[in-house]
Amino acid sequence: MRAKTSAALNRSELEEELRAIGRRRYHDRHPFHELLHNGQLGRGQVQAWALNRFYYQRSIPKKDAALISRADSAELRRVWRQRLADHDGDEPGHGGIARWLNLCAAVGLERRKVESLDGLLPATRFAVDAYVHFVREKSLLEAVASSLTELFAPDIIADRMRGMLAHYDFVSNEAMAYFDRRLTEAPRDVDFALEWVLERAETVEQQESVLDALRFKCDVLWAQLDALYHAYVDPGHIPPGAFAPQDESTDRPRRYR
Amino acid sequence: MRAKTSAALNRSELEEELRAIGRRRYHDRHPFHELLHNGQLGRGQVQAWALNRFYYQRSIPKKDAALISRADSAELRRVWRQRLADHDGDEPGHGGIARWLNLCAAVGLERRKVESLDGLLPATRFAVDAYVHFVREKSLLEAVASSLTELFAPDIIADRMRGMLAHYDFVSNEAMAYFDRRLTEAPRDVDFALEWVLERAETVEQQESVLDALRFKCDVLWAQLDALYHAYVDPGHIPPGAFAPQDESTDRPRRYR
Repeated sequence: MRAKTSAALNRSELEEELRAIGRRRYHDRHPFHELLHNGQLGRGQVQAWALNRFYYQRSIPKKDAALISRADSAELRRVWRQRLADHDGDEPGHGGIARWLNLCAAVGLERRKVESLDGLLPATRFAVDAYVHFVREKSLLEAVASSLTELFAPDIIADRMRGMLAHYDFVSNEAMAYFDRRLTEAPRDVDFALEWVLERAETVEQQESVLDALRFKCDVLWAQLDALYHAYVDPGHIPPGAFAPQDESTDRPRRYR
Repeated sequence: MRAKTSAALNRSELEEELRAIGRRRYHDRHPFHELLHNGQLGRGQVQAWALNRFYYQRSIPKKDAALISRADSAELRRVWRQRLADHDGDEPGHGGIARWLNLCAAVGLERRKVESLDGLLPATRFAVDAYVHFVREKSLLEAVASSLTELFAPDIIADRMRGMLAHYDFVSNEAMAYFDRRLTEAPRDVDFALEWVLERAETVEQQESVLDALRFKCDVLWAQLDALYHAYVDPGHIPPGAFAPQDESTDRPRRYR
């Protein structure tokens, strides 16, 4: 971490600092993803992941709309509006959230149950809501910067698709359509956001705020996997009221401990 | 859980439903507290608990001020103002937050480091901020109801004081002054809040919202212990940037895994 008294970075130095945060803190380094991508999770654990991540997916357009509502520039609003369209689609059954629900169905979750948010880990809700509040309350520069985890997304998405298709018989190409689409959407979105941030983060203070925003967002993603790991892997302490996977062999709620 | 169509409860039934939530979901049932109270944690783990819980302590007056700022009744504002005084004191070095910092010092943490929030678990911040946002954004009835976890506090506080004093040589009576004070403050606060809620939660909808508010608050407390357990007990995955206790035997950062 740079001392607060150092001089401002040039554009390529700032971009490198942003990428360095990703190398240290992005959730591709989390052990839950290793298990997920290497086929080391049971169906109930994959269900818990899909169910909880649904809350993230459904909240993203609210986050993006909050950002648009704060932008004075028609260009920024216009470009960011594409994200709303990507997630919500142009009609029912289309868009990223609908594709995520298809993935949930493919792993054996009832669509209505997923949408009800019943059984969501409280920690998922707290982390995701923190992201929405961050974008509502921090500076617009920080709000845009917090989206830059997408710099690191293409690698993890490609790994995930390869790994999940290879290892889980309940995961099909069709179920992976969400990620397939994100492989083209995320780089397009992040090119614009990165350029926008590098252009405007000129002072040391602005640059620190941008780096902190990206650290914050990495924490939001990481905390979601910590909570899944704690509840459904090791030690398997499912919090009161949270989703309890069925044990496939007995059809009874599975206890991880 | 009651069906949404059932009739409204009378006062004593509603109180019983509230108490039943505590019996199932209050964090005295969490395994981290069992370890803490039975002397099964090392000093570094107790430090992690004190450091993270500091963020909860320091946020409580902000939560209480948010509630006061929404109250139309001078009586509610007046009674609730006592909580601000309890936490912030009448001069520097007094009040609950100062007492919590004394506890942190007693377990070997640097005061300035604790106050900097450096090393705080992101999940702690997300859970506590969710509580502050809840009180700002939900109905006043829900905001007051979310304080009712104090119904269940005296037992856990007494257990904790007894257990921690018996088991940890770095914990003194003086360090426990925070809890000692809460033994008289919490019951006084909660008597008023419970009465206020029982008086106003008349319809089924209001009663459901009150019960949900208490469940939410139990989740806020529980999630903080889940995060501590995950990072510092089992499997001991400390998230990037979070507090890493020193290993007492080597004076090097301790790795739990």
